[in-house]
Amino acid sequence: MKAGDAGKRHMTRVVAKFGGTSVGSPERIRHSASLIKAASDAGEQPVVVVSAMAGETDRILGLAGEFSAGLGDRECDVALAAGEQVSAALMALALRDLGLEARSIMGWQAPVITKGPFGGASIDGMDVEVFEALMAQGIIPVLAGYQGIDTDAQIQTLGRGGTDLSAAALAAALKARCDIYTDVDGVYTTDPRLVPEAQRLDAVSHDEMLELAAQGAKVLQPRSVEFAKAHQVPMRVLSSFAEPGKAEGTDIVAEPRIAERRLVSGVAYARDQARVALLGTDDCGDIAQKSFSALAQGQIGVDMIVQTHSRTPGVVNLEFSVAHKDLAAARERLEEALGETEIRWETGLAKVSVVGAGLRQRADIARSLFSVLGERNIEIKVLSTSEIKISALVENNAVERAVRALHAAYGLDQI
Amino acid sequence: MKAGDAGKRHMTRVVAKFGGTSVGSPERIRHSASLIKAASDAGEQPVVVVSAMAGETDRILGLAGEFSAGLGDRECDVALAAGEQVSAALMALALRDLGLEARSIMGWQAPVITKGPFGGASIDGMDVEVFEALMAQGIIPVLAGYQGIDTDAQIQTLGRGGTDLSAAALAAALKARCDIYTDVDGVYTTDPRLVPEAQRLDAVSHDEMLELAAQGAKVLQPRSVEFAKAHQVPMRVLSSFAEPGKAEGTDIVAEPRIAERRLVSGVAYARDQARVALLGTDDCGDIAQKSFSALAQGQIGVDMIVQTHSRTPGVVNLEFSVAHKDLAAARERLEEALGETEIRWETGLAKVSVVGAGLRQRADIARSLFSVLGERNIEIKVLSTSEIKISALVENNAVERAVRALHAAYGLDQI
Repeated sequence: MKAGDAGKRHMTRVVAKFGGTSVGSPERIRHSASLIKAASDAGEQPVVVVSAMAGETDRILGLAGEFSAGLGDRECDVALAAGEQVSAALMALALRDLGLEARSIMGWQAPVITKGPFGGASIDGMDVEVFEALMAQGIIPVLAGYQGIDTDAQIQTLGRGGTDLSAAALAAALKARCDIYTDVDGVYTTDPRLVPEAQRLDAVSHDEMLELAAQGAKVLQPRSVEFAKAHQVPMRVLSSFAEPGKAEGTDIVAEPRIAERRLVSGVAYARDQARVALLGTDDCGDIAQKSFSALAQGQIGVDMIVQTHSRTPGVVNLEFSVAHKDLAAARERLEEALGETEIRWETGLAKVSVVGAGLRQRADIARSLFSVLGERNIEIKVLSTSEIKISALVENNAVERAVRALHAAYGLDQI
Repeated sequence: MKAGDAGKRHMTRVVAKFGGTSVGSPERIRHSASLIKAASDAGEQPVVVVSAMAGETDRILGLAGEFSAGLGDRECDVALAAGEQVSAALMALALRDLGLEARSIMGWQAPVITKGPFGGASIDGMDVEVFEALMAQGIIPVLAGYQGIDTDAQIQTLGRGGTDLSAAALAAALKARCDIYTDVDGVYTTDPRLVPEAQRLDAVSHDEMLELAAQGAKVLQPRSVEFAKAHQVPMRVLSSFAEPGKAEGTDIVAEPRIAERRLVSGVAYARDQARVALLGTDDCGDIAQKSFSALAQGQIGVDMIVQTHSRTPGVVNLEFSVAHKDLAAARERLEEALGETEIRWETGLAKVSVVGAGLRQRADIARSLFSVLGERNIEIKVLSTSEIKISALVENNAVERAVRALHAAYGLDQI
């Protein structure tokens, strides 16, 4: 007993999050539980966070939709939170079947305190006393993800990627690593379906992961990475389909540990983008402000903003990209907000982005990107850069060639 | 506004409970909500309690069953309670679609305090502050039935008929009438499928309802009626398939209001019973005690106990009935507990019971029951009486004739 207790004090705490696919059936839950068992056997101290079983959230949303209610409705959140309640209980049972003690914890039981709108709340605080108490008894806590309660004890859900956020917040509070089990085995230099030479990265920085996610890589939701970055939580992305003890994955860590190692970490892409140009007199200099607040109100994401002033004073040319699916709504909002300003648009575009913490010190990368794409006759419609990213809008039908060319040019084919 | 407020103070409070069939689909939920709307329009002040959607509890139990867990398991209760969480939210949405304000309340939010075993807890207390606060604002509370939390904040479910119990307890705490909406339109003098002349009763006493339920009438679970009787809660059974405002049903009320009106209120029956006889020397007089504690440990229900002492001192003949499905388990328990005592049994029997608060003053009813069945050559295997009930074990194939004969003989064909 004494040896065991002493051992426990030095165990690495790991919050392990399993998404809908990883708990999509009793068989999948059993397999995910076996990964926890392997981590426990390897001397880690696991805490589990689960999503609803795959399909369950859509099923419940469909039921709520029968009553002129949708995401954002108080009662919709109550119904949705039931999905994670079931999967948390089943995961606790699966762990028990493997000889581990486990106990489900609902958002309200911790409690996980939320604020903000129903259907998209954020986590405002988390009480981990009950987790600590269970862990001290050797019981694995299994938190129902995606949910919490506001200060009025009303159930709220956290919106898309909410369970990742639950896991990151819990890991921060418990000073644990946050393992995100998903259906891929890590973060790749680019989409392996597009580029067979894509390599799994051993590690990326939080910032790189954020840019890769924002530019189209669907491994992790940005909110959890932002949270992890702000609270210095080390994350790991790994596959819930791996054999127990064999999962490797990608570490997402604070920047200094890996910034020097690589100039570029990945090439991301997103198809079906549109380019919007606003041309007009802007005497008050408020076209940009008006446009972006109108689009924000419509919850329309805007990227690749480029503003050029013509030689004629007060005439402005403001360009940006939106997802094609948002274009109609964007035009409507802009027409309403801007009145006289001319709105042009171009569709059938794709965004290709080169991401790397090493880009900070290398302004010349933008130039080399021009030449890599130019040599292949790929026209760059718009180019924008941020601290660790360069994005180019190209024709949809050039995206595959562009990604492959950049992946090779920046040395990602073998790392 | 003032007139409305003044009106509210005099409104009849009604806790309306809807079972699984009544919330089995969005359409059924919509219809059930329209019944609430009608009650509200008629000047009643409604509070709603719902079961899980039909099939949902079995679905969740099936999932839990994949992990060597069953009813009675802590985590099984957590998963099961999710069913009522969804239906309560949907009912609140359905009421809102009809122009009423409504809010779902989970067991833990009230809270409904439970004690006893997981999967079959009882209600130990209920805080109605949140209900009163919502009602004062004109918001209809919708309680998720079948669930509560113990003093350790662990989710517990109330077992079979648990939502009826939630409703009765809430009605007691709110000093409200308790309307149980179900798939029949009230309590009948006997099973209408067996006897076309069966009549719907306008009212029965709690005791009569308890006996009818115990003897095979499946309208209400006994636990809620017992609770209602103990707390003097008037109940009403009515159909959730009725048109809004047209539901009539049966009142279940304190005895004095109707005791004088009718000698017999109903004839109940239960097929597939077995008769067990224990014959043996019982020097210590403890055969009965040993038998019934062994059967209770196996959760085997025992009815119609008859004990006769033979002329030989110390030799006892103890008989009782059990459901045929429990016979094998009963024999096993008894053989283990009693050792030498001879155990005999007879199967293929049915129990026919005459129930009526009026039987209290009329010991001669037992005699008339003998003659009614005797005239039709129906053999009475065992007969037992309680305060407001007489039961007879007859052959399974005689049950229909027996029920019809008794129904006619006691004047229930037209009331």
